[in-house]
Amino acid sequence: MSSRTTAPSQDAATATARAAAQAHAAAPALAGLPLPERAALLRGLSHTLGENAAHLAAVAEDETRLGVDRLRGEIRRTQAQLEMFADVAEAGAFLDVMIDPPDPSAQPAPRPDIRRMLVPLGPVAVFSASNFPFAFSVLGGDTASALAAGCPVVVKAHEGHPRLSDLTGELAAEVLPAGVLSVVHGREEGRSLVTHPAIRAVGFTGSTAGGRALFDLAGSRPDPIPFYGELGSVNPVVVTPAACAARGADIVREYIASVSLGQGQFCTKPGLLFLPAEHALEDHLRRAVAAVPPAPLLGSWISTAYRATLEELATHPAVRSVHRAPTPDDARASVPALLATTAESVRAHPELLQECFGPASLIITYTTTEDLLATLHTLPGSLTATVHGQEHQDEPLARLLAAALHTGRLIWNGWPTGVAVTPAMHHGGPWPATTSPLHTSVGSRAITRWMRPIAYQNMPEQLLPAPLQRANPWNVPQQVDDARRTVPPGRAAS
Amino acid sequence: MSSRTTAPSQDAATATARAAAQAHAAAPALAGLPLPERAALLRGLSHTLGENAAHLAAVAEDETRLGVDRLRGEIRRTQAQLEMFADVAEAGAFLDVMIDPPDPSAQPAPRPDIRRMLVPLGPVAVFSASNFPFAFSVLGGDTASALAAGCPVVVKAHEGHPRLSDLTGELAAEVLPAGVLSVVHGREEGRSLVTHPAIRAVGFTGSTAGGRALFDLAGSRPDPIPFYGELGSVNPVVVTPAACAARGADIVREYIASVSLGQGQFCTKPGLLFLPAEHALEDHLRRAVAAVPPAPLLGSWISTAYRATLEELATHPAVRSVHRAPTPDDARASVPALLATTAESVRAHPELLQECFGPASLIITYTTTEDLLATLHTLPGSLTATVHGQEHQDEPLARLLAAALHTGRLIWNGWPTGVAVTPAMHHGGPWPATTSPLHTSVGSRAITRWMRPIAYQNMPEQLLPAPLQRANPWNVPQQVDDARRTVPPGRAAS
Repeated sequence: MSSRTTAPSQDAATATARAAAQAHAAAPALAGLPLPERAALLRGLSHTLGENAAHLAAVAEDETRLGVDRLRGEIRRTQAQLEMFADVAEAGAFLDVMIDPPDPSAQPAPRPDIRRMLVPLGPVAVFSASNFPFAFSVLGGDTASALAAGCPVVVKAHEGHPRLSDLTGELAAEVLPAGVLSVVHGREEGRSLVTHPAIRAVGFTGSTAGGRALFDLAGSRPDPIPFYGELGSVNPVVVTPAACAARGADIVREYIASVSLGQGQFCTKPGLLFLPAEHALEDHLRRAVAAVPPAPLLGSWISTAYRATLEELATHPAVRSVHRAPTPDDARASVPALLATTAESVRAHPELLQECFGPASLIITYTTTEDLLATLHTLPGSLTATVHGQEHQDEPLARLLAAALHTGRLIWNGWPTGVAVTPAMHHGGPWPATTSPLHTSVGSRAITRWMRPIAYQNMPEQLLPAPLQRANPWNVPQQVDDARRTVPPGRAAS
Repeated sequence: MSSRTTAPSQDAATATARAAAQAHAAAPALAGLPLPERAALLRGLSHTLGENAAHLAAVAEDETRLGVDRLRGEIRRTQAQLEMFADVAEAGAFLDVMIDPPDPSAQPAPRPDIRRMLVPLGPVAVFSASNFPFAFSVLGGDTASALAAGCPVVVKAHEGHPRLSDLTGELAAEVLPAGVLSVVHGREEGRSLVTHPAIRAVGFTGSTAGGRALFDLAGSRPDPIPFYGELGSVNPVVVTPAACAARGADIVREYIASVSLGQGQFCTKPGLLFLPAEHALEDHLRRAVAAVPPAPLLGSWISTAYRATLEELATHPAVRSVHRAPTPDDARASVPALLATTAESVRAHPELLQECFGPASLIITYTTTEDLLATLHTLPGSLTATVHGQEHQDEPLARLLAAALHTGRLIWNGWPTGVAVTPAMHHGGPWPATTSPLHTSVGSRAITRWMRPIAYQNMPEQLLPAPLQRANPWNVPQQVDDARRTVPPGRAAS
């Protein structure tokens, strides 16, 4: 199924148009598959990833230098995601079936029989990420959730791992019906994908600038479509004075480990560390960051951007350098760094709050609770925010912090990297963390991005979709009348 | 609470800024109210509408000419909406609480305690509609669902009923805490509302052109916000050959009644009637539409637009007039009309598919099933689509029609006007019916437009919001681990 054009080429529009047309043609059959068959496709994809893990990891390592162990682990995570969405599809709760039986005596007007469920939107585009060549790429969470929803997918491969993307697409094509998954390459193909009439929604993981440009493009269509972008996030970490006094050295050691995990190339990398001004941890911090070895980044385009952002921040008059590794000869290598400023300076210089994708972060010292809260209120929305505090002693302060942090996930005495792939996980947040604060790209609710409701009014039983029928042949949960009267699977609705 | 500036004025930005600032200040307390207290506010609003119904209806009649009986009925509907959202708020299922207990042995990684719920987005703007001065206006469904979600509201009043809007806002201010609901007036105030930093989402009901302009404005913000617009809809009705033969005269009589209800000023007014070419119902149709009395429209701006669109359609070379009332002297009066064309002409002239807001509609005759389906596939997305068929005889054809109609609500042997205000109702649809196909402005799911999820990771019990606590003091449904293990209210989650 993969439409290979590794470099932008003359037939760019043709490759995208072909993939979108194939997806359009494949959509009705995929939407109509009974849920266990849809789940079986997802489990088949997980199986093929497992069967081919060694080869896939080798190709990925060659392109990304993320390390084979990490890549094997990421393949297992990607399999877990596919299997979670297989379970979600099979359980059928995601269809959000609601049934209002007719009531001729209702006031202010008689009410008809109304049966509502979610249906797939149609073909969707998925822009894969550089930093997770499996978990946020061709068969990553966006694709898994879209297939579970019943939507064919056209993946715009990331230029950081084109061979892996094609290989993954070819393996998927052996599992999926024709046209259900295609892979296209190149920036222009990506833009024509977003504006293609057959494409009904877009998922994107990447930079704020790139995501914003595609978000604007999706919104400028004659028929605008939903654009679910996960963009930039500074992921603040706040250490209370009590926690700093009780276990400051441990906290900053773990902080630097989280910052430098995967060379800082995670969406959830903590980028800001708020410490009380009297922290006395600078030696610990310097030693910890000095011990981080430089290593290859995902590509020279990442290291170029990283070094430019780092230079801009490090030379800012309000910033001083706690530690900055010497710049290596290898143009792709990282430069681990730690910078410092004050809460007051951050309020005066919001440009300090930009995301620096790589193993650098900024310590922000605060003097009082008011100084801290005033600065937290100026932070952009983030995927995660973390508080390190002392459970009972810090309770009043922790409540103020929770209210001030504008985030999609609030972590207590832990670290944001390593997103748990579990049903309740929310991986999203207010702008610029995402383009749509209601939605997540991880967790079982990710599936709703690719669906829309239809209400059927007074339809005869045999013309209703299976999930809405009184006989409930697909055995899905049906909520009758309102959310307080849920009919579990296996019982008729009315 | 209402900020009265009936005409665009010097202090426009000031009025909007004041209302937005008051809403921002009121947001935390509203978000923190226990659910029964939030529900009590909504029930208080319903009560005050009922207590003041006679006066409200008189003011509304003076401004809209919709008729006192209709307006009293609409007040009762608006009360029912407020009470439904009071029930929704109190039940707590809308918080969509999901809990993943920790699992240190989970693969591929140990999992933390993750507890997720929806929280209010913050202050929202509601642009009210001309055609429902109660049900889609100051205390209409958008406001009711936003208050139930815990969001303060700034209403941009419709210029068709400014005095009613202020009166409603003043009555609401006696029930609600300060700043929770404000009313502003004028186009420029509306635009500054959409771009105000405190406003976190927008609800809109109105024209495609006006909605598109505000949708683009919301998307152009430095921090784009969700824009939930209900725009234009042609609401096709398809009559099968069998239904036409069996009960064609009844169907067309009821069709004209639905078209001309409220002088055609409903979002769900059927605008297109697909009939088999051999229908032989033209006399019935002509008599039915000739019997519709001209009557005042909502305002002269509506009648001017209506007459212009009607003239454009009636003089189109592919269209002939079945009946068109003489143009009355009263510039605000309607001109009931019925036009006709063929399915083939519609495919050649998509400009015939525009919405004509008022008591006019277009008959489209089709020759074969292929002719019909080919034309249905060219229709824009719609709020509703209706099929009149014979239950058993038409089953195969009805399946093809259901797949071809691109709509939010599919009606069998009924009429789209008169939207049932029930939990499962979906009042939405693909563009241009709405700007966001996932969402509804009627029914219990309308509340999710004003919310976003937060996941709490490893938070101590006493720092969790009440709905996520193990003790479940608010007694809300908690879904533990996945959707198949729902813990009903009254039982602890873990």
